[in-house]
Amino acid sequence: MWFLRQAGRYQPEYRAIREHHGILEICRTPELVTEVTLLPVQQFDLDASIVFSDIMIPVAAMGVDLAIDPGVGPVIAEPLRTRADVERLHAVDLDDLDFLDKAIRMLVAELKVPLIGFAGGPFTLASYLIEGGSSKTFAATKALMLGEPDTWAALLDRLSDTVIAALRLQVAAGASAVQLFDSWAGALAPGDYERSVLPWSTRILSELADLGVPRIHFGVNTGELLGMMGQAGADVVGADWRVLLDDAWERVGHDKAVQGNLDPAVLFAPWEAVQAAADDVLRRAAGRPGHIFNLGHGIQPGTPVQTVKRLTEYVHDMTARAVEGEG
Amino acid sequence: MWFLRQAGRYQPEYRAIREHHGILEICRTPELVTEVTLLPVQQFDLDASIVFSDIMIPVAAMGVDLAIDPGVGPVIAEPLRTRADVERLHAVDLDDLDFLDKAIRMLVAELKVPLIGFAGGPFTLASYLIEGGSSKTFAATKALMLGEPDTWAALLDRLSDTVIAALRLQVAAGASAVQLFDSWAGALAPGDYERSVLPWSTRILSELADLGVPRIHFGVNTGELLGMMGQAGADVVGADWRVLLDDAWERVGHDKAVQGNLDPAVLFAPWEAVQAAADDVLRRAAGRPGHIFNLGHGIQPGTPVQTVKRLTEYVHDMTARAVEGEG
Repeated sequence: MWFLRQAGRYQPEYRAIREHHGILEICRTPELVTEVTLLPVQQFDLDASIVFSDIMIPVAAMGVDLAIDPGVGPVIAEPLRTRADVERLHAVDLDDLDFLDKAIRMLVAELKVPLIGFAGGPFTLASYLIEGGSSKTFAATKALMLGEPDTWAALLDRLSDTVIAALRLQVAAGASAVQLFDSWAGALAPGDYERSVLPWSTRILSELADLGVPRIHFGVNTGELLGMMGQAGADVVGADWRVLLDDAWERVGHDKAVQGNLDPAVLFAPWEAVQAAADDVLRRAAGRPGHIFNLGHGIQPGTPVQTVKRLTEYVHDMTARAVEGEG
Repeated sequence: MWFLRQAGRYQPEYRAIREHHGILEICRTPELVTEVTLLPVQQFDLDASIVFSDIMIPVAAMGVDLAIDPGVGPVIAEPLRTRADVERLHAVDLDDLDFLDKAIRMLVAELKVPLIGFAGGPFTLASYLIEGGSSKTFAATKALMLGEPDTWAALLDRLSDTVIAALRLQVAAGASAVQLFDSWAGALAPGDYERSVLPWSTRILSELADLGVPRIHFGVNTGELLGMMGQAGADVVGADWRVLLDDAWERVGHDKAVQGNLDPAVLFAPWEAVQAAADDVLRRAAGRPGHIFNLGHGIQPGTPVQTVKRLTEYVHDMTARAVEGEG
């Protein structure tokens, strides 16, 4: 088990570091990445660590001028709208991601649990570039995707090159698994996902196959996309809480692992409600090998630290008991 | 066919009216409601009209101080957090919704197509009251729902009374159908929906059964909830674009009608892409009786009026051809 956004604003230690350092500054300073990444694994009994970074970090290395606004997300100085804008995106020079390489090497030397590397998925990255930031409707992204398929393809080709390079770098530095966060792909109709995103996700995941590390593929609102997300070449598919875990697993296929899927908002409720929700996830996982307990999306700011800690202990306690029961 | 939010900011005539009148002011002035509601049916070949109003209008009549911020949505002066806050919500005096009664009577006298009345669903209304406005995470709403089930039940009891009263008033005034907009219910895990929302939706829809008008039940992100939304007592279940229409219909049950489900963002794309997306919806409806062509959510500001018009003509043309083909 581990938690999406397990290092973040819900932690007082993280907020203290953020008082002195911007998000991009932390991401680009190996010592700070290490400090922040280690916080949750030092405090809670987690089975994996995930490098503290941002999905826009490799995109910035393509020559995109961007900022991360606290509480808002990425803000792109000049949103991308034309083929010429796409042509200006250059290939990533791995030297420009040297801080990420260094951070992962430092982390792996410290960690007693596996480290997960990650990158953004093609739809999600494209949407930030086209919308200029986060969006409720993705109207500009979808208009370009449907109306200018050649420009869309050129953009996703370049983003895929970057994602592959960034993930290969992280594994070379010591990451034991990778997660492809196509967080907003669930905003698409299934047919649009299949035609306009899946080919690139498939390319990304297949070009990582030779690394021999588990590939996790995740997004929210993906109930109808789970089967395709697995077929793209993932070993593990993450699901949000909107779909029952056993239904999700059936759609993903029992030959693959699943990750999820407690509603992170439940962590604001009293412990009894958290426990009941965790019990439901575990009951639906039914002790099958290949369930990675996680939330359905990132831990939210304001989440009680004590609840995160107690949930970690509870899930480990319950799964240990289940294993004993089998033995 | 009709469109969710068919009267709205995408129309220059609507924007012109909004320059002189606030949203709540329009909702409370029968002449303005009539003018705004008639705009789309005067311009496009739509099969139904839906009264221009806001789901918070009946809630305001319970004594809640609220505003509708353009582009943001409802803003509640004092968000509701405690049992005492719930107790302060009073039953709606129908005289306080007299403007709605008048508007519907005026509209029905003018319209050549049926008029749909509507109200917000229990989760959606509760979420606005608890969060104080719109929310990405619904953390406060879910914490109260899971942590204080008695307060939640008391709140949903009162909201359900109001919704029932508001919908009965609209049918009495001449509405030919009603839609229960539980727009944000899809933010819930299926088990939470079943325990904490479905009993109230079921009560609302069943207490309208004697009116003999079709009851439409709609929300976004409801792929996993469609079956329950039908079982709640709806005659028609609306689906967003994230689920394929034929899959949606299977979950709803072929004994019921379905409404949807073109992605409203597609309307920003060139006509060829709009046509292809409409064709896909129609193909999946397969000419079965009981498909109401609609979008998967409201028409967005900035949508080209010409595309809305052309889509209306295209769908009518295609369905007329299909009927001829059968005959």
